[in-house]
Amino acid sequence: MPTRRELANAIRVLSMDAIQKANSGHPGAPMGMADIAEVLWNDYLQHNPVNPQWSNRDRFILSNGHGSMLLYSLLHLSGYDLPLDEIKRFRQLHSKTPGHPEYGYTAGVETTTGPLGQGITNAVGMAIAEKTLAGQFNREGFPLVDHYTYVFLGDGCMMEGISHEACSLAGTLKLGKLIAFYDDNGISIDGEVEGWFTDDTPKRFEAYHWHVIPNVDGHDATAIKQAIEQARAVKDKPSLICCKTIIGYGAPNKQGKEECHGSPLGDKEIALAREQLGWTAPAFEIPADIYAGWDAKTKGEQAEQSWQALFQAYQKAYPELAQAFTRRMAKQLPKDWASKSAEFIANVNQKAETIASRKASQNAIGGYAPVLPELIGGSADLAASNLTLWSGSKGIQEHTDGNYIYYGVREFAMAAIANGISLHGGFIPYCSTFLMFSEYARNALRMAALMKARNIFVFTHDSIGLGEDGPTHQCVEQTATLRMIPRMSVWRPCDAVESAIAWKLAIEREHAPSCLIFSRQNLPHQARTAEQLQAVERGGYTLLDCTGMPEAIIIATGSEIGIAMDAGKQLQAKGKAVRVVSMPSTDTFDQQSPEYRESVLPASVSKRVAVEAGVTAGWFKYVGLAGKVIGLDTFGESAPGGELMKYFGFTTENVMQTVESLL
Amino acid sequence: MPTRRELANAIRVLSMDAIQKANSGHPGAPMGMADIAEVLWNDYLQHNPVNPQWSNRDRFILSNGHGSMLLYSLLHLSGYDLPLDEIKRFRQLHSKTPGHPEYGYTAGVETTTGPLGQGITNAVGMAIAEKTLAGQFNREGFPLVDHYTYVFLGDGCMMEGISHEACSLAGTLKLGKLIAFYDDNGISIDGEVEGWFTDDTPKRFEAYHWHVIPNVDGHDATAIKQAIEQARAVKDKPSLICCKTIIGYGAPNKQGKEECHGSPLGDKEIALAREQLGWTAPAFEIPADIYAGWDAKTKGEQAEQSWQALFQAYQKAYPELAQAFTRRMAKQLPKDWASKSAEFIANVNQKAETIASRKASQNAIGGYAPVLPELIGGSADLAASNLTLWSGSKGIQEHTDGNYIYYGVREFAMAAIANGISLHGGFIPYCSTFLMFSEYARNALRMAALMKARNIFVFTHDSIGLGEDGPTHQCVEQTATLRMIPRMSVWRPCDAVESAIAWKLAIEREHAPSCLIFSRQNLPHQARTAEQLQAVERGGYTLLDCTGMPEAIIIATGSEIGIAMDAGKQLQAKGKAVRVVSMPSTDTFDQQSPEYRESVLPASVSKRVAVEAGVTAGWFKYVGLAGKVIGLDTFGESAPGGELMKYFGFTTENVMQTVESLL
Repeated sequence: MPTRRELANAIRVLSMDAIQKANSGHPGAPMGMADIAEVLWNDYLQHNPVNPQWSNRDRFILSNGHGSMLLYSLLHLSGYDLPLDEIKRFRQLHSKTPGHPEYGYTAGVETTTGPLGQGITNAVGMAIAEKTLAGQFNREGFPLVDHYTYVFLGDGCMMEGISHEACSLAGTLKLGKLIAFYDDNGISIDGEVEGWFTDDTPKRFEAYHWHVIPNVDGHDATAIKQAIEQARAVKDKPSLICCKTIIGYGAPNKQGKEECHGSPLGDKEIALAREQLGWTAPAFEIPADIYAGWDAKTKGEQAEQSWQALFQAYQKAYPELAQAFTRRMAKQLPKDWASKSAEFIANVNQKAETIASRKASQNAIGGYAPVLPELIGGSADLAASNLTLWSGSKGIQEHTDGNYIYYGVREFAMAAIANGISLHGGFIPYCSTFLMFSEYARNALRMAALMKARNIFVFTHDSIGLGEDGPTHQCVEQTATLRMIPRMSVWRPCDAVESAIAWKLAIEREHAPSCLIFSRQNLPHQARTAEQLQAVERGGYTLLDCTGMPEAIIIATGSEIGIAMDAGKQLQAKGKAVRVVSMPSTDTFDQQSPEYRESVLPASVSKRVAVEAGVTAGWFKYVGLAGKVIGLDTFGESAPGGELMKYFGFTTENVMQTVESLL
Repeated sequence: MPTRRELANAIRVLSMDAIQKANSGHPGAPMGMADIAEVLWNDYLQHNPVNPQWSNRDRFILSNGHGSMLLYSLLHLSGYDLPLDEIKRFRQLHSKTPGHPEYGYTAGVETTTGPLGQGITNAVGMAIAEKTLAGQFNREGFPLVDHYTYVFLGDGCMMEGISHEACSLAGTLKLGKLIAFYDDNGISIDGEVEGWFTDDTPKRFEAYHWHVIPNVDGHDATAIKQAIEQARAVKDKPSLICCKTIIGYGAPNKQGKEECHGSPLGDKEIALAREQLGWTAPAFEIPADIYAGWDAKTKGEQAEQSWQALFQAYQKAYPELAQAFTRRMAKQLPKDWASKSAEFIANVNQKAETIASRKASQNAIGGYAPVLPELIGGSADLAASNLTLWSGSKGIQEHTDGNYIYYGVREFAMAAIANGISLHGGFIPYCSTFLMFSEYARNALRMAALMKARNIFVFTHDSIGLGEDGPTHQCVEQTATLRMIPRMSVWRPCDAVESAIAWKLAIEREHAPSCLIFSRQNLPHQARTAEQLQAVERGGYTLLDCTGMPEAIIIATGSEIGIAMDAGKQLQAKGKAVRVVSMPSTDTFDQQSPEYRESVLPASVSKRVAVEAGVTAGWFKYVGLAGKVIGLDTFGESAPGGELMKYFGFTTENVMQTVESLL
């Protein structure tokens, strides 16, 4: 029977060897945290390597994702579908072992980590999801949802601002089943951290009302076990276990130094480390007794079977709940979703209201949420501005079965928490702030897209149209830059109808996030034929057509559709064959067939004018060198919104003149 | 003689009245913090309203910038050039009183605030600048640089992650002359904060090693004064004065509630507030004795005169230092800058090295810094990757006269701190991280551009070319989105020569920031004629020309110039008239004369191919609908960089084939 240390050393050697073979990677963290990981995974982690999708598994997050070999070692050793060959292909093209853990590439990787601070924040999201899902589904004697979320994090995560946002909120929300292990090794890339990082971290987390266990020897299995016991015993606070560790533990000349953080140790040091660790097996060979000591398959299958038995009893006692649970965990929408959403859109179309699109968004939430209990909303302290509350909203801080998160002024954490909620399963999150402050959350939006996570980002106050708050709040480049995130769908609807349809598509976009961009100010309803109503889903469509081939095409989005339509109608009245195209979602339009795109924007029509209250650069893709763009390549100003629109040239007259200048 | 409360009430009435007139704005914070501001400004703040540029003034930052009427009231009352007419034009087009305080619009506004958390972070930058400038210039008996940085902040700033990054670093750096006033009013936009913000803030700041003064009654002038005395007495720690206040203090029905945060109070409530405050003067009339009580002009002029006398004595004792100080505070470059920089660039050109552009960047820093003592560098814990250290770098945590900041893993704070350093004066900051993590700092980059602050952002590891770290670290859309920030200059140089020139231009860009984007991997040197060497400064220029009018033009940047040049040469060898344009800076190219642009990209040549390892959308502006873009609209992969370049089509062959497909 191997010792705990011997089991942990398997992580160390696999990590050194794989990194050496790849000639790239980060051995320091895996070697430093191996003992902690061994205790947690072998004695506590509830999971089933045979079924990584078991809904009630504990979630394990490696927030210091550069230490990916730690996680790959754990997955390999405990029995996940990650054979040794994949470990040997660490960091190679299309391996299951990319440089950082990538969600969707490797069974057992719960979230993509690497961008520091976001892993712990995703973990907060998962803990929120667990607690809230439990509140919604658990019944007396049926703890259907009852798992821990464990997270490893290092100094980098601790320094990042998002760790403040996430951990402050986790404390407020009393997430007792969130247990974080802080790898306090005193080293970051620039060297010993004391020159730039001197926080009293235990005190800091006490200030967040966490349960803090300081000064744990991260290489003493007994101490680690004791700390985990203490952490699990405290139910009403998240726990931080502060582990003093030696980075690169086991490498005699490099341990405790920055040198072992982000580079292979080198063959010589690896040989010396093997000696120091007493590890005699050659590279990529793990003794059978070590494998046996790690194997979690039988234990995992038993754990899942017990849960399945519980679920079967639950199904009998609460058949409807059980069905809803199964449906939601499978990411299926309700059976009546298609009919209900179509009905709602038809109603909006019939009402023909002139309202702000942020208000239309709120109406859509209120229209869809009653049939979608998986919707879980929130705003970064702007509920009354973003209009994210509906009549059924219940704050999770007061209601264990709630569906609304008061995120506070924490945009970045909000987005990354919502990513964690989405990845956990059981929910479709939406969250919101002013479009400008999408910038605070920018990398979390990208991470949602990278991870193919359904997440609905609601961004309001989308242009100079917001008025008096001025250039710090007036978006100019934000919509255009969001459109550049691969796999992100971006919608900037022109009225309540497009808003309702954008919401519907975002909900249906199972494998990717969406940004829904709304105005502060009122936008006029646009009349549409049944065919046009259908075409909205295509992202770009002809909203006003002329007889025969157009001489010129006006393309516009959102709040600029109003002036584009006025200009189009007036130009038609003057005998010009002008078409107006509404293009609420360029990415959706780009995905249509060439035939459809040609039908909307015929190649033969080179006289094209795009109109959008934002930067112009992205629009040349649609208007070409022969076209013109009415946009805004400077910052806004503080003044009433209507006045600014005129000042910056967003008027019917300017659109008409610009079109006429091409004719 | 008016009482302190009466003086403070002048802020309250000016704020309510101006916001009511504008029918827009935030009365809560100005009314809540008026008493604190009155004590600070009347008893402590060293400033001269007659000369807002006096270098040794105390800096005052309103981090909760939505409370702009507080600052405008203070500036107006104390004697700055901000007449009552401008107060009456609050939030109107081209007034000096925009919705949020905007640097450059209003004398006495030290930085633009509104995006929460950035004001306190700018303040940390100013305090760093003060301390370091003092270290560089002060001599025994000559405290030339010796001022405080005071900052007001609210719950919003406290919740934002950037406040963690900035305040943690401020504690580590022992910024004793930074004094922050926390407006602890228990209210944020969503209501009473206890549902989402329960931090023990004093404890949190103690964990950062701040000097914390808890539980100060923010409406008791004596208590406030005592707290400020205590704060000033502690020289080796920044101080946080936690002030309990009532938001909207004085408005009988709305004070203490969210209602008064962000909307005008209404005429009726204003009348009642006047009654409660005992204020009898009508709107926009301030009694003469109140003005007299606030007037800081005489005191300010005296303070500046004393300092001028000190400076004159300093000039005699240290003429060279005095000259350097004057030069740096006036933002003038050294007299020999033009010759020295030209010499350096000529040397780089002669050396013709094939090195990574990040290495070329380090060489440029090492080449320019010896003649530019105002350069103050730093990296977010990636010095050895970003290559930001040069032989003369000295960390400010160890050297009071240092020139390098170990920012730790704090990208957003780094950028906003550098903004504060730039605004303080005396320095040209540069700071650095991986290009991907420009996203963490995104809004601070925008703020630099909005404020016209010279700030040099060095972003390395710019594409899939970085290799094994994978898609979380591989930039795809980042360069393109940075180009969309108004007023930002973005350079992606192709070799050491372009890198040196980009650095030179960034240094010379007195009124705006630059992003310098560098590769991890080696890039071949490109040979240039003297004329081509000159033309680099134009942002786009012909690097390889053909005889006569080209049939096709290849446009490329950075690491893709290598394959573009190879393709161009091979196509020429096949008899094709192909031109290659290097376009390191699209914004700089866009600013050239139409004639120059036509000379590089003749309108008659519609067969154009752009090549850049990033998203394609921005390039249609240069290639039009008839051209093609070789780019990357998906995420990267984890694999060696060279392999990825081939995998994603960045090869000479693909460039050739794409050009030939157009011919």
